[in-house]
Amino acid sequence: MTTRSTIKLADGRELNYYDAAPGAGREAYADRRRLPARPPAAQLRYDALRDEWVAVAAARQGRPLLPSTQHCPLCPTTDDNPTEIPAPSYEVAVFENRFPSFGGTIADGAVDDPLSPRRPATGRCEVVCFTPDHDASFARLEPARVRVVLDALADRVSCLSDMDDVEYLFCFENRGEEIGVTLHHPHGQIYGYPFVPPVAAQLLNAARSHRERTGANLFAEVLAAERAEGTRVVASNDRWTAFVPVAARWPFEVHLYPHERFADLAELPDDYRDAFGEVYLDVLRRFDCLFGSPLPYISGWYQAPVRADRDLAHTHLRLFSIRRAPSKLKYLAGSESAMGAFVNDVAPEEAARLLREAE
Amino acid sequence: MTTRSTIKLADGRELNYYDAAPGAGREAYADRRRLPARPPAAQLRYDALRDEWVAVAAARQGRPLLPSTQHCPLCPTTDDNPTEIPAPSYEVAVFENRFPSFGGTIADGAVDDPLSPRRPATGRCEVVCFTPDHDASFARLEPARVRVVLDALADRVSCLSDMDDVEYLFCFENRGEEIGVTLHHPHGQIYGYPFVPPVAAQLLNAARSHRERTGANLFAEVLAAERAEGTRVVASNDRWTAFVPVAARWPFEVHLYPHERFADLAELPDDYRDAFGEVYLDVLRRFDCLFGSPLPYISGWYQAPVRADRDLAHTHLRLFSIRRAPSKLKYLAGSESAMGAFVNDVAPEEAARLLREAE
Repeated sequence: MTTRSTIKLADGRELNYYDAAPGAGREAYADRRRLPARPPAAQLRYDALRDEWVAVAAARQGRPLLPSTQHCPLCPTTDDNPTEIPAPSYEVAVFENRFPSFGGTIADGAVDDPLSPRRPATGRCEVVCFTPDHDASFARLEPARVRVVLDALADRVSCLSDMDDVEYLFCFENRGEEIGVTLHHPHGQIYGYPFVPPVAAQLLNAARSHRERTGANLFAEVLAAERAEGTRVVASNDRWTAFVPVAARWPFEVHLYPHERFADLAELPDDYRDAFGEVYLDVLRRFDCLFGSPLPYISGWYQAPVRADRDLAHTHLRLFSIRRAPSKLKYLAGSESAMGAFVNDVAPEEAARLLREAE
Repeated sequence: MTTRSTIKLADGRELNYYDAAPGAGREAYADRRRLPARPPAAQLRYDALRDEWVAVAAARQGRPLLPSTQHCPLCPTTDDNPTEIPAPSYEVAVFENRFPSFGGTIADGAVDDPLSPRRPATGRCEVVCFTPDHDASFARLEPARVRVVLDALADRVSCLSDMDDVEYLFCFENRGEEIGVTLHHPHGQIYGYPFVPPVAAQLLNAARSHRERTGANLFAEVLAAERAEGTRVVASNDRWTAFVPVAARWPFEVHLYPHERFADLAELPDDYRDAFGEVYLDVLRRFDCLFGSPLPYISGWYQAPVRADRDLAHTHLRLFSIRRAPSKLKYLAGSESAMGAFVNDVAPEEAARLLREAE
């Protein structure tokens, strides 16, 4: 039974500890740092030509870049290194990002330009530390710890869904310098967007059209088709299936679906939470075996928006790497970055075979 | 008056020379290489959950990676280095890509899976060599050469628009290893997609809604607003204006609009073609001055689709860099790559100021 204990950091940000059992007493440790006031919030700007919002977060330019272990802000606090986490140890710790893209100190007002309205980038950004061990990786966590991480994410989704200006919660992990990770300590993030982000909206639009046309849930049909076809399945147990999607955009991309539909992580029942680690850890370890070195990856949960399409979404995780060969990366060049048209150099069936054979 | 002369390469691909004056006689040089048969075409796969097509181009894995000057396939042919261009010199040369993402040898048929139909990736991919000088860059071309490049692109758009399976033509340049360029020789590309790619479709959808709502052209209104506001304008003359868009996604991003609306490059009249180089070269040189080293960039033309929305599109160029500071790149991590929600760490007004001051 995962328990939560909450404190405030020196600059007023919230920190939540999640532990497998109550009584760890972490809330007894106060943050004794002198921190500067939090930077002003970012600004949301409307791109009329793409009908999308872009966050302009100039204050983030100053954030730390790959500090050494001695100065890692995600390690437990020691006498020599007072960190974001005041306790001398923790299991999973989640705190408000000091350099948020969304949320923080809301200062400047809205600009009512008809073509390009702007407003403060409300919302919430949190950092999720998976382990106090600076040199660990998610792939090497114990299944019991994965369960605490999942419980922590589910609880954050539940808590942050109550915030007025959070419309979509995205829990994700960036891993590897190749994709721009600025802190090596194993951690994920939660972005609470004040809008439904474009890719989530796209999936839900497709699912809505499909339901109107056929009455069926598109996510469920995709999952059933991949399980029936089998050639792209990488790993599974009786509650989760991991497969390379038929139209994968990335050289190594795996989608991990629960066999029943849940709108978000908070809805995942105990048996699904317990069964998740087995399949996800298996896939992550295969990723790292593929080329004999830790694979840079992005992994994230696609859920229902907080206040819409709750009956449409089928929560699932998507994991992908930009590495396409031991010494080659997949770059998003003109076709992908400028036109959104993806060219994948690795056939999904071949990627699935390589992942199944990676041990 | 730019002229075109055409030959076939050894494996049947077309090569077009573009010269500022007739009589260069380049078509006299035959391709004497023994080339293997062209690889089979890629496959288009439908991603039902995003309602988009993805190209799977496994044959591209084998393409050359940063060959030395001695073996550059884009240099003019010499005795020691028979290249893609048989002539001993050229001004601008455009040829079919040997490793195309779209088009080539169409072999395997369609798969009628209702959830994920697949079909051969028809279309056309061409490579555009801007200069025979391996060590040059677009920024250092003479204005007269820029005019020949623009004429060549306009002619390719005109020619390729006649192909049945080309629905959208994207002319672009990737520059810099940081964005995955595999050949250093200054060159661009043309992708003839057999569908309208997602970002182009998005712009046109926004413009269509805007016209239905207001009767006005959204592109023209955006251009007028940026010219009136002025704070984000980087360079201009009496026919073109270059500005950082109000909701820029990238740390350094410039959009370059002609002052009148043309559906595609083929429609650009002489005076606009002549006036383009002055503004574009100015912006490119500012890019390279920004951090004292050549800036990696993607630059591409947004046009009307070949057979749709001809009255809606306003051809323009978009140029952006992923470099956000001398030693920092903007990576597309979780929010951008997985959710499509961009966070820009550089305020557009600040980017415009830095570019105006870069000399």
